[in-house]
Amino acid sequence: MINKFRFGNPIIQTDAVVNDLSLSTNSLSQGAVKSDWPFAFEYKMAKEDMIFGLGENVRGINKRGFHYTSWCSDKPGGNESDSSLYGAHNFIVIFGEKISGLYFDTPGKIEFDIGWTDYDTLTVKCDVEGIFLYEITSSEGEKSAALKDIVHQFRQMIGQSYIPPFWAFGFQQSRWGYRTEKDVREVVKKYRENKLPLDSVCLDIDYMEEFMDFTVDKAKFPAFKKLNEDMAKEGIHLIPIIDAGIKQKEGYEVYEEGKKAGYFCKKADGSNFVAAVWPGKCVFTDFFREDARKWFGSKYKALTDAGVEGFWNDMNEPALFYTEEGLKEAFDKFESFKGKELDINTFFEFTPVSGSTCNRLKDYQSFYHEVMDLNGKKVSVSHDKLHNMYGALMTKAAREGLNEIKKDRRTLLYSRASCIGSHRYGGIWMGDNLAWWNNLEMELKMLPSLNMCGFLYTGADIGGFGDSSSRDLVLRWLAFGVFTPLMRNHAAWNTRNQECYAFGQSEDFKSVLSLRYALLPYIYSEFIKASLKNDMMFRPLSFDYPEDKIARDIEDQLMLGNEVLVAPVYRQNAKGRFVYLPEDMIQVTWKNCQASQAPIEKGGHYIDIPEDTVVFFIKKGKSIPLCGKIAQTSRDVDYSSIIKLGDSSAGYELYSDDGFTTEISLKNIRTI
Amino acid sequence: MINKFRFGNPIIQTDAVVNDLSLSTNSLSQGAVKSDWPFAFEYKMAKEDMIFGLGENVRGINKRGFHYTSWCSDKPGGNESDSSLYGAHNFIVIFGEKISGLYFDTPGKIEFDIGWTDYDTLTVKCDVEGIFLYEITSSEGEKSAALKDIVHQFRQMIGQSYIPPFWAFGFQQSRWGYRTEKDVREVVKKYRENKLPLDSVCLDIDYMEEFMDFTVDKAKFPAFKKLNEDMAKEGIHLIPIIDAGIKQKEGYEVYEEGKKAGYFCKKADGSNFVAAVWPGKCVFTDFFREDARKWFGSKYKALTDAGVEGFWNDMNEPALFYTEEGLKEAFDKFESFKGKELDINTFFEFTPVSGSTCNRLKDYQSFYHEVMDLNGKKVSVSHDKLHNMYGALMTKAAREGLNEIKKDRRTLLYSRASCIGSHRYGGIWMGDNLAWWNNLEMELKMLPSLNMCGFLYTGADIGGFGDSSSRDLVLRWLAFGVFTPLMRNHAAWNTRNQECYAFGQSEDFKSVLSLRYALLPYIYSEFIKASLKNDMMFRPLSFDYPEDKIARDIEDQLMLGNEVLVAPVYRQNAKGRFVYLPEDMIQVTWKNCQASQAPIEKGGHYIDIPEDTVVFFIKKGKSIPLCGKIAQTSRDVDYSSIIKLGDSSAGYELYSDDGFTTEISLKNIRTI
Repeated sequence: MINKFRFGNPIIQTDAVVNDLSLSTNSLSQGAVKSDWPFAFEYKMAKEDMIFGLGENVRGINKRGFHYTSWCSDKPGGNESDSSLYGAHNFIVIFGEKISGLYFDTPGKIEFDIGWTDYDTLTVKCDVEGIFLYEITSSEGEKSAALKDIVHQFRQMIGQSYIPPFWAFGFQQSRWGYRTEKDVREVVKKYRENKLPLDSVCLDIDYMEEFMDFTVDKAKFPAFKKLNEDMAKEGIHLIPIIDAGIKQKEGYEVYEEGKKAGYFCKKADGSNFVAAVWPGKCVFTDFFREDARKWFGSKYKALTDAGVEGFWNDMNEPALFYTEEGLKEAFDKFESFKGKELDINTFFEFTPVSGSTCNRLKDYQSFYHEVMDLNGKKVSVSHDKLHNMYGALMTKAAREGLNEIKKDRRTLLYSRASCIGSHRYGGIWMGDNLAWWNNLEMELKMLPSLNMCGFLYTGADIGGFGDSSSRDLVLRWLAFGVFTPLMRNHAAWNTRNQECYAFGQSEDFKSVLSLRYALLPYIYSEFIKASLKNDMMFRPLSFDYPEDKIARDIEDQLMLGNEVLVAPVYRQNAKGRFVYLPEDMIQVTWKNCQASQAPIEKGGHYIDIPEDTVVFFIKKGKSIPLCGKIAQTSRDVDYSSIIKLGDSSAGYELYSDDGFTTEISLKNIRTI
Repeated sequence: MINKFRFGNPIIQTDAVVNDLSLSTNSLSQGAVKSDWPFAFEYKMAKEDMIFGLGENVRGINKRGFHYTSWCSDKPGGNESDSSLYGAHNFIVIFGEKISGLYFDTPGKIEFDIGWTDYDTLTVKCDVEGIFLYEITSSEGEKSAALKDIVHQFRQMIGQSYIPPFWAFGFQQSRWGYRTEKDVREVVKKYRENKLPLDSVCLDIDYMEEFMDFTVDKAKFPAFKKLNEDMAKEGIHLIPIIDAGIKQKEGYEVYEEGKKAGYFCKKADGSNFVAAVWPGKCVFTDFFREDARKWFGSKYKALTDAGVEGFWNDMNEPALFYTEEGLKEAFDKFESFKGKELDINTFFEFTPVSGSTCNRLKDYQSFYHEVMDLNGKKVSVSHDKLHNMYGALMTKAAREGLNEIKKDRRTLLYSRASCIGSHRYGGIWMGDNLAWWNNLEMELKMLPSLNMCGFLYTGADIGGFGDSSSRDLVLRWLAFGVFTPLMRNHAAWNTRNQECYAFGQSEDFKSVLSLRYALLPYIYSEFIKASLKNDMMFRPLSFDYPEDKIARDIEDQLMLGNEVLVAPVYRQNAKGRFVYLPEDMIQVTWKNCQASQAPIEKGGHYIDIPEDTVVFFIKKGKSIPLCGKIAQTSRDVDYSSIIKLGDSSAGYELYSDDGFTTEISLKNIRTI
């Protein structure tokens, strides 16, 4: 059951909930609202209570013991000092004697103190004008069923998760630094030469002319359409990046059009808000306006006409390098230190000055969006109060535009910034991570949280985006990436090459990567079923074994679908790892592009897992499909070569279709 | 056997090796020197080779797969982007089919690429004028014996590790923020009221007058001597901090004396090198000069006369906030951006400008030390070439001074910066860490590496220095801290209070902390035996079970002495953990200030470990001493109440003395 509550005066109706309810007259089943405005919710946690959720954020699957802020932030890496990442996902599940789900529906900043100030107290605070709170409870008596039912009800309420085309489940290679057509062709050539499967190459900002959206640099990509055609023959899709900022440049068509129509965010004085990002000074589309969204979305045609069928939207928190105002403040501040002897206090004011121009709250407060209030009246609201929806609405703009442009085909779209609601329009990658082993561990823990919040098409940049990666890190990360819907290797400018052929002995990479293609029918089926049925594709062990206290405690293993348990190696130099199995299972060992299986008893085991090997486990009485033939691209995946792993007597519900139809239904499921 | 080699022309004889050898005519048993100058060593690693060592540094016990730089750095936290911390410890052990130890004896920067560029290649590079290389091999056939023997030989070569007084093994409470005598008395009062054992309170920079070394702020500490006397009655020692920088202030006695005698580091033009640190502009003692060391060491008397018997030396990398030159460069650079539109390239030059004044190589290159070259000739050498010895020589200065001042008593001394050699003069804490769970894990991995390099009296700041800590983090960290020789809770200015009484329900803290005092006879015995016998107190499991492939792979458990295995909980919200036992053992569970024990079989186990409980394991056929009565300070530890844990029929070699005598010998060991 879902109860909807309203506190204070919410400025707008967010885009999160699809089948809305009338306000409830019941009271909350757990916790209490201590203050309507500023909003403050409090719940006294029992010793064993666990708190799940918050989607894309730092720390563990159980969020207890720290504080988190929903505020879309350009924050690479995510260490233990951080409390925000690129997304803002305000759904939590309280798992204790009683189980309930809470969704805090606001486009503004909201803070979760989950046992940080006091380990036994959960408080949620928000000082925007008002907020809608949804509490979800379940009539299911059994804990596992109740946990799943609560997430299911929430997911139903926020609408079906985005489903990309089949090819988007193939492996994607990306790098900030593929600067020319030649570079791109070279990458594909190397993958093919080394028999390393590949479906896509992402184009980072390098491909644009002066980093201007919807342009292609003619000098570096002289025949972009031809390139897409040639790639298509190879079964390769190019996935260009689109940034939120539009270069403020006289004569640049997109800028001129938007300026003429007044689609850009305005300052209090009515002038366009200007901030520098990659292209230098930029303006920012007011994605809160339907007409502006429609306009921006239509622009993607410039690239789809060249054969592009997939995009990634970046820098849409929005990330701001500096505004003139911010720069001036920094210069003035700097000036004020001149000649002074900096003491213990002033010195620590001094050191951050030049970095202080990025993503300033002051700048976010200085521009406005045109929105409808709850009475349908058009009002102008400062960005900071709506911040967390900006990137989500850019995704919506792109989605609506692409659906218009490509009526009967699915197109690929994923974004950096997001909030609940945008899960219907596109996927997300987990933002700018780093080549850190603990960022691999962080992905593992983020996946089920993101699934709870509706984000199914997701994954972290394999190998890590920032910092140079190492061969073993890329290999181990790939071995986990074979299970994530979005499987992309991406690296930053000036870092070491980390393509699957870059480190030598590419057979090891081929061995791991080939599993992805052998598993594509399974990954695709589980993904689509999770989307259509509003279920989680990845779950914490505690969702399936809530009564098993060891399983409840484990955060470095996940349940995948209804059949599989994954336990990746995420420590450097580890030759294997401890795995805990809550029940008897079948161990699948993938090596040299071949699967072997053997029963394994419930309990703790140390499992040898060499770098070229992937190990996972199938529940007793379950089976999964595996392609006997290894394809080099998703196009060549041979469903007729499917064999079954696990309990061959057990049926498996296989979803399959042509991979691009927009008619996606459970009717396409057959039991094999 | 130890072979000594010389490559290039080393500038000086460092202070690391005590019983020196003549140059060897043999060749290296493993690896080869590819170039004498600039120095380059290379070794091709076999697939299974492990590399241990490097003392205080980031990452795992097995250092393979990353690159490290020995360069004493003021780098809080230590994340996966870092390759240096506060110490410079150039000893590694190659553990493969053949086993050897390598010590790279240089005071300058040296870089270790341990399978980073290529996972199978170890290279060590150094571009100072020259270097001494010591290779240590063992005639022991058995791997465990060989590993221990190689470390033993190295430790013998670098001399016996520093031994502090008994009270230094008691619990220390510290905070940057105990600003007055009242604050200090309050801390002690609260510990006593809550029956929380305590031996010392550390005084951070707050106690000084304008942060001037060897002064006490009369306003805040009006009767410092009386305070020490009162504390002594309570069994409490105060441990003041001493910084490397000496405030450049007319009339400040220490400054005037040093200036007059010319003891401070000079620039090329002969003027004193000046850089700002806590007190503002400072000068820096040239600790490479014996007369300057003697002078600086004698200054500690100002505080020992007030009753102080322990010190910590800080900021001695040396950390530099800024020089006039660095500040000018920053201002000029900043100026150069004025009016410009910062593009993608210039913006990333702009953001770090104001932070760029700290610890600049340029500044380190701009001042000189007066040293003896290998021919005993006095020469002037720029700091950067000798950087890693600076903090170590400050420790030496303090040690020699304190030994002079307190002839027949041991005094406590530990430092932030260090290099091999200074392990004879004092201990080290693990620098400015953060309130991160992975900093607890990092301590666990650093301990055996530090022991290899001679640093036995060490420990990390419990709860983490920077960032606010949480109750559970402090508790879990304490539960590991009970085993580390230096056990100190320390926090930074502006962070949450994290004393053992600060979070409420102090019984949990009392339960954990009391184990430290019950174990003091054991910790003290194992420490002194390790020092006298040149052995490691903490060892990786691979040192004791080199043939057990699971044990070799485990980096989150340690062997303590010859009896104990420790396996701390270092994950938030974990209710327990997996522990692997290479052989049958006895599990000791400490709860409510009482120990219970039960046999446990070899293999993997999930062990419940509540927050108020400490679990450790004793090898079969071994016993350890435990005090039946729990003392509130080390002074009251009752040896007559000792009972034995483990196999009561097994004898234990107990070392005991009056706790301050300088006559420390194996003669004081008796078997109980």
